[in-house]
Amino acid sequence: MNTRGGSGGTAESGAAHTTTAGRAGRRPGGPDTRGEILRAARESFADKGFTATSIRAIAREAAVDAALVHHYFDSKDELFIEAMAIPVDPRQIAARIIDGPRDELGRRIATAFLGVWESAEGQQRMKAIFRSVVSSDEVARIMREGITQMIIQPVSKVLDVPDAHLRVTLVATQLIGLAMARYLVELEPVASVDLATLIDRLGPVLQLHLTG
Amino acid sequence: MNTRGGSGGTAESGAAHTTTAGRAGRRPGGPDTRGEILRAARESFADKGFTATSIRAIAREAAVDAALVHHYFDSKDELFIEAMAIPVDPRQIAARIIDGPRDELGRRIATAFLGVWESAEGQQRMKAIFRSVVSSDEVARIMREGITQMIIQPVSKVLDVPDAHLRVTLVATQLIGLAMARYLVELEPVASVDLATLIDRLGPVLQLHLTG
Repeated sequence: MNTRGGSGGTAESGAAHTTTAGRAGRRPGGPDTRGEILRAARESFADKGFTATSIRAIAREAAVDAALVHHYFDSKDELFIEAMAIPVDPRQIAARIIDGPRDELGRRIATAFLGVWESAEGQQRMKAIFRSVVSSDEVARIMREGITQMIIQPVSKVLDVPDAHLRVTLVATQLIGLAMARYLVELEPVASVDLATLIDRLGPVLQLHLTG
Repeated sequence: MNTRGGSGGTAESGAAHTTTAGRAGRRPGGPDTRGEILRAARESFADKGFTATSIRAIAREAAVDAALVHHYFDSKDELFIEAMAIPVDPRQIAARIIDGPRDELGRRIATAFLGVWESAEGQQRMKAIFRSVVSSDEVARIMREGITQMIIQPVSKVLDVPDAHLRVTLVATQLIGLAMARYLVELEPVASVDLATLIDRLGPVLQLHLTG
């Protein structure tokens, strides 16, 4: 498995760590136990995919007790988010998208998505994720499964139109291409146009994908 | 410069070669002169970008006469297309897009774009191009400049609306994301949906980007 870039370097540090470390009442294991679990999770996601990977299997791979995995990570979703160095919780994004009027779905998606990546750190993370996904079919598979289950499926469910899954996935393609052009390839004028203009442009287009 | 993948391996062989080789009346140089010129072109595009590169500079870099470069390649555009292993001539695509009713622009773009990449060979080329672009900032810059000048600018000119350049570039982002999802990441159901359905979905969305 290729763990270069975003899936490797950044997952064990930063804000995400402080939210789960330091919980009282259980033995935290050795100093690098958390890192070992993340490494085992990446291996397991790569070998078996997101769906077939279980917390128990990750624990076995990391040679620790499953309870210790739960000490550091609430769920398989959380392990995935940290293992792939995604800077936000996709489930929160999904919740934010779903909550509100249906005819403003497109605008909410544009706002939520761009809000995550506009910072310098977000752009660096996005570059690293693109590099990992493009250079490794396995990373591509993990991302595909994780994003499908955590964002595309929940949003598809509330949409309640024929072809909802295809529609939401087409929204994802617009966002992937926009991120690639704005943050990675720096294709002008998309790369430097202000955020408000971009949201004004994208909102109706995403809405048409969803309900047009 | 990184010339892995599509920009390196495939440019010197295949159909593109047979269209320019074998022209009578001039000395063709050594057996690998054409390859040397392509290598020099890639170097020069990488060092100076597409705009600042000239046929003369490429000839100097390849240590051949400029007339010999013209023997193999009609123009700098053609050198770019072959050096980057693009399977079609973007100028022909631009012409096909421009020619027709304005309110069917979106559909013509979807049809022209997908027509190029749907073959197994097209998909392989697209993968190689993505890998080159994502792994090298220089390849990204060359592609950005070349595609902007050969497709985005000519289509923007005929569009004749405010923000035409931004609108056409946003169309490009949708197509980039679609290609990444369908050919590289294989995100379902976009990866396997039939072409007609995809064109039906994309046409109106691209049209909204352009004239909405």
